[in-house]
Amino acid sequence: MTETIADRRVDTSATKTAVTRWLADFERALTARNIDAAAALFVEDCYWRDLVAFTWNIITIEGPEGVRKMLVQSLDQVQPGGFAVAEELGEAGADTESWIKFETSVGRGIGHLRLRDGKAWTLLTTLNDLKGHEEPKHDRRPKGTEHGAVPNRETWLEQRRREAEELGHVTQPYAVIVGGGQGGIALGARLRQLGVPTIIVDRNPRPGDAWRKRYKSLTLHDPVWYDHLPYIDFPPNWPVFSPKDKIADWLEMYTRVMELNYWDSTECTRASYDEAAKEWSVVVVRRSVEMTLRPKQLVLATGMSGKPSVPDIEGMDVFTGDQHHSSEHPGPDAYRGKNAVVIGSNNSAHDICAALWEVGADVTMVQRSSTHVARSDSLMELALGSLYSESAVASGMTTQKADLTFASIPYRLLHVFQIPVYDAIRERDADFYARLEKAGFMLDFGDDNSGLFMKYLRRGSGYYIDVGASELVANGDIKLESGVDVVHLTENAVVLSNGKTLPADLVVYATGYGSMNGWAKDPEPWEGELRNMWKPTQQEALWFHGGNLHQSRHYSLYLALQLKARMEGIPTPVYGLQEVHHLS
Amino acid sequence: MTETIADRRVDTSATKTAVTRWLADFERALTARNIDAAAALFVEDCYWRDLVAFTWNIITIEGPEGVRKMLVQSLDQVQPGGFAVAEELGEAGADTESWIKFETSVGRGIGHLRLRDGKAWTLLTTLNDLKGHEEPKHDRRPKGTEHGAVPNRETWLEQRRREAEELGHVTQPYAVIVGGGQGGIALGARLRQLGVPTIIVDRNPRPGDAWRKRYKSLTLHDPVWYDHLPYIDFPPNWPVFSPKDKIADWLEMYTRVMELNYWDSTECTRASYDEAAKEWSVVVVRRSVEMTLRPKQLVLATGMSGKPSVPDIEGMDVFTGDQHHSSEHPGPDAYRGKNAVVIGSNNSAHDICAALWEVGADVTMVQRSSTHVARSDSLMELALGSLYSESAVASGMTTQKADLTFASIPYRLLHVFQIPVYDAIRERDADFYARLEKAGFMLDFGDDNSGLFMKYLRRGSGYYIDVGASELVANGDIKLESGVDVVHLTENAVVLSNGKTLPADLVVYATGYGSMNGWAKDPEPWEGELRNMWKPTQQEALWFHGGNLHQSRHYSLYLALQLKARMEGIPTPVYGLQEVHHLS
Repeated sequence: MTETIADRRVDTSATKTAVTRWLADFERALTARNIDAAAALFVEDCYWRDLVAFTWNIITIEGPEGVRKMLVQSLDQVQPGGFAVAEELGEAGADTESWIKFETSVGRGIGHLRLRDGKAWTLLTTLNDLKGHEEPKHDRRPKGTEHGAVPNRETWLEQRRREAEELGHVTQPYAVIVGGGQGGIALGARLRQLGVPTIIVDRNPRPGDAWRKRYKSLTLHDPVWYDHLPYIDFPPNWPVFSPKDKIADWLEMYTRVMELNYWDSTECTRASYDEAAKEWSVVVVRRSVEMTLRPKQLVLATGMSGKPSVPDIEGMDVFTGDQHHSSEHPGPDAYRGKNAVVIGSNNSAHDICAALWEVGADVTMVQRSSTHVARSDSLMELALGSLYSESAVASGMTTQKADLTFASIPYRLLHVFQIPVYDAIRERDADFYARLEKAGFMLDFGDDNSGLFMKYLRRGSGYYIDVGASELVANGDIKLESGVDVVHLTENAVVLSNGKTLPADLVVYATGYGSMNGWAKDPEPWEGELRNMWKPTQQEALWFHGGNLHQSRHYSLYLALQLKARMEGIPTPVYGLQEVHHLS
Repeated sequence: MTETIADRRVDTSATKTAVTRWLADFERALTARNIDAAAALFVEDCYWRDLVAFTWNIITIEGPEGVRKMLVQSLDQVQPGGFAVAEELGEAGADTESWIKFETSVGRGIGHLRLRDGKAWTLLTTLNDLKGHEEPKHDRRPKGTEHGAVPNRETWLEQRRREAEELGHVTQPYAVIVGGGQGGIALGARLRQLGVPTIIVDRNPRPGDAWRKRYKSLTLHDPVWYDHLPYIDFPPNWPVFSPKDKIADWLEMYTRVMELNYWDSTECTRASYDEAAKEWSVVVVRRSVEMTLRPKQLVLATGMSGKPSVPDIEGMDVFTGDQHHSSEHPGPDAYRGKNAVVIGSNNSAHDICAALWEVGADVTMVQRSSTHVARSDSLMELALGSLYSESAVASGMTTQKADLTFASIPYRLLHVFQIPVYDAIRERDADFYARLEKAGFMLDFGDDNSGLFMKYLRRGSGYYIDVGASELVANGDIKLESGVDVVHLTENAVVLSNGKTLPADLVVYATGYGSMNGWAKDPEPWEGELRNMWKPTQQEALWFHGGNLHQSRHYSLYLALQLKARMEGIPTPVYGLQEVHHLS
């Protein structure tokens, strides 16, 4: 025991010495504006991922030459300094890694460094707060009441009511967020803490309704440790996998206690930007009344998955049964004993097939192309366990450290970190995969065997996290037609390209969603980051926000800081603004 | 620096050795049923405070003879063992103190030990969970969905709705809690986690309404670190002092996300206990419909302060202005420019006077007897800071440790720990107190100079936490009539015992509340604990719960464990059941 502690001390101390020396060299070079010397501190195949600290952008810079070019443009403005090991974050995940901290001319940053042969292999720099605009939390939290005697003071309730009445009418919000799902809500919470007047508009009557309206058996496939919102963690008794209505209630509660200006039952019908006035006109219909908001910034947070994709199939007009996209599926109860055909083989398709089978429907899944499947337990243990799990929390992992560790791996390298995980899953669940394939299911593990998460990032689809449906597919309870397409529908059946006719009372199109903003698998030119998300676009003052709960939580910080800086008139020169991407 | 660390190591290790030796001796004596040897391990003036671990009671045992008597009765049943230093709780507050853990025949406990000359001076033992009935949290948290295929499964929402529809109608709750303030809500949350079917009934339309209905300027005088509910902490941006409507919103949200069966708009009209059936008949009127609930356990959580006390003053029937008890005071807005007389000089009286002055009323406070005043800042720093503050949290203090540290001080010794705090406050704020007295204000520091908290425990009143009104009293903005009583009211004035007549458009009776359960300052016989609260009473299956947020949070654990044990048929022999106390 004593020996282990001693050994560890030596290792830690050796890393710390190497990191401290690197940081000192780096700071000396930057302070001297010796950009060549700074770039020489990176290995040839290095990656420097910056989240708005150096570039006011979300960008991954590759190679010493990339480092050089970026520093030439930004160094005078950023004036970085104060580089040090961030002791308060504890030890990083491996021997050659370290948490770091630094300052810029306008803010404080935290980051992560991986050394190779004494040089930087990966560097993450993130802006954590803006000097003079720190969030009012912990020792800066509000007092709640002004002690002393204040003639005609307003109470908290009176202030809150006045704000709600005036914002959008007497006063204009600085930002409008269209879409009040987890993305809009998490960003709204951060903006409120930063004092950025914001209105969130959402077409549904209540926060959380986007979840409530989905098929009734839906539960989150991501575990609770991955799903925390900013500021208020889920309690220790919260289920690992949130049922949809429970997460909806949490979002509704959160919106209330975080005092968000959330306009429910409000549709945004159009928006235009006045380049001269630097202001948006956002037309909304709130509870049937049309009005125009005039924010400086507009955030679209209507869901990364965008609009439902419904295929155009011959005979859809003559089919007399029920047919709908998976997003409109009401749940299985009306289809007890009926014939159901579900077109698609991703998460929703599997969930819907299983729920239909559970009430006694006769269900066929039509698999048109191969699908990646990973068992939930295996994913939790092998893919997420080290960062997001009860045991990670028990070992001192925090949400902040987990998010930053994850962010520290550049997109270009992510598959390298992922492939061994899925190799292990494939080995562990070999029997399971064999049974699935024997039933005719077309399996894949992603193009480079990098598995589920890369599919999520590259396509947003193409996988199923198995929570039980695969067993029903393997044993034939859910009938499977694979490697086929739908040719046409008749009055009461689905006709497949293999010549089979499937009688159908119900057809569900579990055919996915169109992308909101044209991100997709690595189209040229290479970017190394998600396209358009959480960062400046070619359209000034237009922003895209969203993603799963993890992304909504973590990246809302950087988007919120970008908006706050602009509101305060802090210079935000953007390095490496991305090109326009339209896939549609 | 190195020396300090080395010194500390020696100290810690010396304490640990002494504590470990004591625990080993104690366990050896208990295991051998050598009660005399066990009692001999305590100093003569020792205190052993037990929260339902050894006694199924909340009791403080005094002296080795008290220890002996208790062990004679309970040792065979409790079968304590496994005593050890609780390393996971870290270091205790002082050199001679330590966190400890132990087990009993039915549960696991944690505690706190203060040694003096190698013997126990104070010992705290608390039951933390019941074996086989641990709460489903952290690594025991529910999965949220049953993976696999489950014919005709119910979703979370369907289960929750069915439960809400059936409980109290088709099935009977095991416990009914009357009163849905913070006390009822905190206890309800713990009982739900322990799987005890419970209904909370409250007369108001919404959880939190008891706060919403109070005078509009009310904010909590206890700081946020002291106020957390179980399971969900207030977020780091929560105000230090919660405005009443904000705490009300939090309670409403909490009730929802913790899935409590909360019957709003429901009055309990009567209850009777059937000794033979061991069951209560609780008659409630829920939204105008009368029905009878038949729980096994009944908890009264209608507020420790009980009913408003309104004095009976001659002429109240002829007074033509507004008059009401402070609990009914609507806030100052209607009294701008009017003459107001506030009778009383405690918290509510000061708050109401200040709010009336802030809108421009002419206000007189009638002080009938001396009052303890402590400035909020001084209290926060000197009285609460080491356990409940941002800096305490930053140094590793948790709510659990703070609560247990506080609980470890026996009631008999509490004033000894409190007196130096108030001596320091008196010195620090000497000018402030001098100015108050110069204005005629009658000050006290409690009978034994032990200050505010002892007054709260002994009387529940008699003090003001100054957040600004004292300055108005000192400078004469709030007029003061002290050492007087009200003789009678006329049509439009208040006549005092000093002969003065105060014109009045408004009279507020800030005259306090009757005690709910007859606790009061140390009536005979001495008990050393709050009377009736959170523990068995002479009336089987009747319980009293409540207090401020701190008490509601901490003691709800022990009451919940007592109820759960009874539901599960775990033997709960009560040692030292208290006598009946009726003060009214």
